[in-house]
Amino acid sequence: MIDKTVLKRLTEIVGKENVFDQKSDRITHSYDATGRSYLPDVVVYAGSAAEVSEVMKVANRYLIPVLPRGAGSGFTGGTLPVQGGIVLVLTRMDRILAIDTENLVAVVEPGVVTAELQRQVEKQGLFYPPDPASKEFCTMGGNVAECAGGPRCVKYGVTKDYIMGLEVVTPTGEIIRTGGKTLKNVVGYDLTKLFVGSEGTLGIVTRIVVKLLPKPEAKKTMLVQFSTIDGAARGVSEIIRAKIIPTTLEFLDASTIDCIRDISPVPLPEECRAILLIEVDGDREIIEKQAVRIMEVLQPLSVLDTRIAENAEESEEIWQVRRSVSSSMRKINPDKFNEDIVVPRSRVPDMIRALENLSREYGVPIVNFGHAGDGNIHVNVMVDLREEGMEEKVHNVMEDIFRTAVELEGSISGEHGIGISKMDYMGMEVSEITMRYMEKIKESFDPNNILNPGKIFQKPIAAEGAL
Amino acid sequence: MIDKTVLKRLTEIVGKENVFDQKSDRITHSYDATGRSYLPDVVVYAGSAAEVSEVMKVANRYLIPVLPRGAGSGFTGGTLPVQGGIVLVLTRMDRILAIDTENLVAVVEPGVVTAELQRQVEKQGLFYPPDPASKEFCTMGGNVAECAGGPRCVKYGVTKDYIMGLEVVTPTGEIIRTGGKTLKNVVGYDLTKLFVGSEGTLGIVTRIVVKLLPKPEAKKTMLVQFSTIDGAARGVSEIIRAKIIPTTLEFLDASTIDCIRDISPVPLPEECRAILLIEVDGDREIIEKQAVRIMEVLQPLSVLDTRIAENAEESEEIWQVRRSVSSSMRKINPDKFNEDIVVPRSRVPDMIRALENLSREYGVPIVNFGHAGDGNIHVNVMVDLREEGMEEKVHNVMEDIFRTAVELEGSISGEHGIGISKMDYMGMEVSEITMRYMEKIKESFDPNNILNPGKIFQKPIAAEGAL
Repeated sequence: MIDKTVLKRLTEIVGKENVFDQKSDRITHSYDATGRSYLPDVVVYAGSAAEVSEVMKVANRYLIPVLPRGAGSGFTGGTLPVQGGIVLVLTRMDRILAIDTENLVAVVEPGVVTAELQRQVEKQGLFYPPDPASKEFCTMGGNVAECAGGPRCVKYGVTKDYIMGLEVVTPTGEIIRTGGKTLKNVVGYDLTKLFVGSEGTLGIVTRIVVKLLPKPEAKKTMLVQFSTIDGAARGVSEIIRAKIIPTTLEFLDASTIDCIRDISPVPLPEECRAILLIEVDGDREIIEKQAVRIMEVLQPLSVLDTRIAENAEESEEIWQVRRSVSSSMRKINPDKFNEDIVVPRSRVPDMIRALENLSREYGVPIVNFGHAGDGNIHVNVMVDLREEGMEEKVHNVMEDIFRTAVELEGSISGEHGIGISKMDYMGMEVSEITMRYMEKIKESFDPNNILNPGKIFQKPIAAEGAL
Repeated sequence: MIDKTVLKRLTEIVGKENVFDQKSDRITHSYDATGRSYLPDVVVYAGSAAEVSEVMKVANRYLIPVLPRGAGSGFTGGTLPVQGGIVLVLTRMDRILAIDTENLVAVVEPGVVTAELQRQVEKQGLFYPPDPASKEFCTMGGNVAECAGGPRCVKYGVTKDYIMGLEVVTPTGEIIRTGGKTLKNVVGYDLTKLFVGSEGTLGIVTRIVVKLLPKPEAKKTMLVQFSTIDGAARGVSEIIRAKIIPTTLEFLDASTIDCIRDISPVPLPEECRAILLIEVDGDREIIEKQAVRIMEVLQPLSVLDTRIAENAEESEEIWQVRRSVSSSMRKINPDKFNEDIVVPRSRVPDMIRALENLSREYGVPIVNFGHAGDGNIHVNVMVDLREEGMEEKVHNVMEDIFRTAVELEGSISGEHGIGISKMDYMGMEVSEITMRYMEKIKESFDPNNILNPGKIFQKPIAAEGAL
């Protein structure tokens, strides 16, 4: 329970209408996309950097954890109040403050929904590339906190590559600005990039300057079916070797295809054991040439069928195949453990083979799809946790998956972050010494460890508020 | 003077042949491209991360400053031993360890010369874009330390955008690895990007993983002469508005043109008051179309003459115009103060006007050229320091230049960093609170403040070793 004095102070800062301490409100802000749930003590909707700053000062005075939160769509528990405290929601700060067509930058508040920013800049002929799957509801603040990725990153890079400057409220309540509106800036340490991907543990972003690009003239979508996973995997390498970097280079493995066969708008025969979904964008003539070249290099590689979208409708149909994946997987088993390992592109075939072996060895279905172009594989271990000993089995298979990814010179997370879900595995990739430097940085910004505590580094402390 | 025990220990670490404590050796390692000079106590050439680590341990034990150094071509004193100590040269570590054509990455040691890396990857059809003017002699370690830029950054971004992973020896002598070979990685804080641009104050880079791109098929170089600076400045905006982002968009102002008129391979009449040097690269057909479109949008803007290179030789001739700038400026006055402010692209005309006013007001020639495409202007205040009161005048004009850049939402340094040259002005751009966070980060990594002390933050302490 939150102290009455604190509650009064919070009410003074953001107004009565933006403070919620009823059980029902606390429950609706207790979970995220992980499905795990921890009850906060109070929920506060802040309307400005000044309000966020005041909330942080109160929190420091009374040593109350603060959990910044956008849409709560994160996959690793980044917004979960594992130690109770104040869930600080930033969705009221949802203005696009500027779209500067001369300097190709936009300035936004953290509560702006990613797809909404994309639509607004596209109206001006501009382009904000990062496109996490949750783009229709996730917020830019969350994208910055997690360094969101998406299918287009193979060509365009991740969120970090588009963040030029920030206004940040530090854990102790100071308002600072980093970076700015220029592409070049080497004045002191790059705090901007340090905040991006810090999972809301170093500061609360209250304003974001993003880089924009001219909108590509056109795009072309292709779906290629293979009779072997090796064919698809080699296809990825061959496209890059042909000096083409597609916008999107997604793959679906055989188990994924089995899940979607019944609902796919494109017929997927039994012999189809892998799919590449390829999109190129840019000048109209160039992408036509690229599409032809891509088909040429793929043809020798166990291709069963190819489909090139001739218009927006056909492109949408192809994308529908990819989009049907997530919802269809639950039919295998009720509980999904969704990880986002990444390996160097050339190691994708090794990783897929290892995943197939682990699936056999542990006797659990593993469904794989994702961003083959940048080696980022979404690995879905599908189980029924009601089965005896399944929890432990999942832990072991995860550990093996992560170990394999690191052995293949990859990483345990390409897009989702560490949060609470991957804390136990972080040591596989990051040495103890390196971790200590990260902890020191955390301490430099947050001496009382009140901003999003229990994430990345520390073991989650079972809080009173845990449901 | 360095203690005999320390000297002995250093000799044990790197071998007798790599330790230099003769006055002549110390003098040759006492200066950089700023022309300022501070005598080190000893010069050590390290051959491996392990050796660097051991040197740092000795330095910590005896509290001796260590100054990492590549080619010493920096413009802000980043390698100067302002407090004496050990100049630690990394040029022996000059191997290109891997060029991975499948994953489009290279792995290099810090002593690799930037242009050499570029040549080697280009042989494989690949491309490393950052191209600082000093690329023929500067080293990759220095590029990482300073986050080097160059003309191509308007399209391709700066060094930071190409550094995927690092091996770093921390100030206390620990060897850590950050990032890796994957484009996506969100495991903990992004130490990689924190080290890039930290001016050798947080760690010594001993291995670098860089991102490569496919080499563009072709390029096209154009030189456009304008009768007014406004025409050229508006031209920059118009090109971007036409949704073309050139590889290079360099400009030369009237004072620059006056300097090079006699030696330029391209005739430059008196009426020519500004030049844009434009290069586009990519698919052959596209760049032809882009060149035509660029000429169309520029034509109404006081264009005197245009020249489009039809072959490599003509392109080289155009670049010769740009390259002749630096060497020709000294004919105005013997002492050059070369700064690299940056403003949002649309503010370049305002900045140029302000510089012209300052030149008149102070009665000192200011020669401006640089990377108009990203707003990065190289401002050269040309004076004769033998004149009475000139030193103070230069300080004042610099202060006004930096203030104007910051007022125009720009930055006091786009490429060169702070070092010792811009420490006095850093407060104009970075708030005291933000500076304190940077200092805390520095303390976290370097508790004894022995790695490159007296740079970025602190006032340089007049050391015994100062010449």
